[in-house]
Amino acid sequence: MTILVPATSANLGPGFDALGLSLKLYNEVKITKSSLSSVSINGEGSDNVALRKNNLFISVFNEIFKDLSGSDENFRIVFDNKIPFSRGLGSSSAVIISAITAAYFMAGFKVDKQTILNKALIYENHPDNITPAVFGGFISAVINNNAVVFNKFEISNELKAVVVIPNKPMSTSQAREILPKSYTIKECVSNLSHAAFLTSCFGAKRYDLLRLACKDVMHEERRMNALSELFEVRKMAYENNALMSSLSGSGSSFLNIVYADDAKNLQKKLSEKFSDFRVEILDFDNDGFILMQS
Amino acid sequence: MTILVPATSANLGPGFDALGLSLKLYNEVKITKSSLSSVSINGEGSDNVALRKNNLFISVFNEIFKDLSGSDENFRIVFDNKIPFSRGLGSSSAVIISAITAAYFMAGFKVDKQTILNKALIYENHPDNITPAVFGGFISAVINNNAVVFNKFEISNELKAVVVIPNKPMSTSQAREILPKSYTIKECVSNLSHAAFLTSCFGAKRYDLLRLACKDVMHEERRMNALSELFEVRKMAYENNALMSSLSGSGSSFLNIVYADDAKNLQKKLSEKFSDFRVEILDFDNDGFILMQS
Repeated sequence: MTILVPATSANLGPGFDALGLSLKLYNEVKITKSSLSSVSINGEGSDNVALRKNNLFISVFNEIFKDLSGSDENFRIVFDNKIPFSRGLGSSSAVIISAITAAYFMAGFKVDKQTILNKALIYENHPDNITPAVFGGFISAVINNNAVVFNKFEISNELKAVVVIPNKPMSTSQAREILPKSYTIKECVSNLSHAAFLTSCFGAKRYDLLRLACKDVMHEERRMNALSELFEVRKMAYENNALMSSLSGSGSSFLNIVYADDAKNLQKKLSEKFSDFRVEILDFDNDGFILMQS
Repeated sequence: MTILVPATSANLGPGFDALGLSLKLYNEVKITKSSLSSVSINGEGSDNVALRKNNLFISVFNEIFKDLSGSDENFRIVFDNKIPFSRGLGSSSAVIISAITAAYFMAGFKVDKQTILNKALIYENHPDNITPAVFGGFISAVINNNAVVFNKFEISNELKAVVVIPNKPMSTSQAREILPKSYTIKECVSNLSHAAFLTSCFGAKRYDLLRLACKDVMHEERRMNALSELFEVRKMAYENNALMSSLSGSGSSFLNIVYADDAKNLQKKLSEKFSDFRVEILDFDNDGFILMQS
């Protein structure tokens, strides 16, 4: 079987731990029963020998497969990773989702996407990466009784993402530690009103209002201070018609949303100025992970 | 001219200072040029003699009319008020909106609804009552450069509001004082994720998810403690098929949303148990204020 899981941008603007969306940049996993276990990794992570023995996919897959089937078996697993590691583009969520999906399938269980999503909560306790990875689109999610409850709005194909991927990671745990323990009522109201408004902009397809809607006062700039070029990325994005410019996840990548016609110009400008960073034009994904039986 | 302005429920669930909706319960104002000034009040406020001389409508109307026309003139003003005072149903916003609209009209200016809305911000600095009073529907709003920017989702006519109106007011300023100055990050995330999710439920018409979406941890229960019967109102509402049950504005009214078929039963149950409170079945308004030239 083959599983394709999309990259995601979570913590979207004011939507800390709540809002996310899905991008057409996929990690592919092929898994087949085999007489001997083997792992090969192409793309992201291929230069990391340790990953072949000890990786998140294998630990999640083994745990669930054994739980479902009651047996240990050998598999040949081939990864073709396009999502950069530790750059705020949902690589861990993609791994978790593909591992759960593969485990159910290889153990002979048919499950729906919602079951896979709820299972993923055990490994990733925030819904804003895992939900778009499973269902695609723009997602507003909450957790209720160990399940993810969400609404999805499809993202217009008139839009493109111009994603800036720095050459340095930011670790999620470090990024969380720099946040304050409490916020003023004014900060809370700012984030909740903008998170709701950002959601309404995707729901109503008022993409012209995204720049106003994506304002965050809880986490984004505190995290951007660790990589101050990101302030210049945002400035340049807005000078070149970006509709929205936000930290992706807890960084280090930056998500710029533009109308399709503006994508190449912005990519060129950003690439010229930030020659150490990758700048990719991506479509938005509205489907989430794809499972192919062959 | 005649102006009809609807009642509103703001501070909707987790949407403190951000989310509101509009109800088909109207204050009507008739205003005509006259040789002598006169004010009469029917309905809510009719028993308050002082209101005939000194009321919010007259002060806002006079200020704007004089500013626009440069003159003082005499008007005959007849109020027919259906929105209860100081019960969290937007009576002040209705007064402000009608006064601004009347002033522009009587001064001979044609203005659009957005201009009236922005002007209203001078008198009411939160957008969540004034915006649905002007445009109707479910509103997600933010303030930007002294203007209200918002998205509106129409509310299905399959739904009804069963509004509980206690016999005691709660003052907005008192209600604000009992709130803490700061919130934990967990509380902030809870409210922003639920405010976004509540917005997505109205956008996607997933009214079946409103009960989960309307969860607030910032203000509601702190305010309900001042009138503890409201906890019983909510309990009874949920036992009788309410989709959502939330404090309206900063109280004291309670907004219960139900499918139309469940409205009468819930009204009956609530009326029997809370005989001192008014319990009204209302439709949702999707149009906002109405101006008639005669």
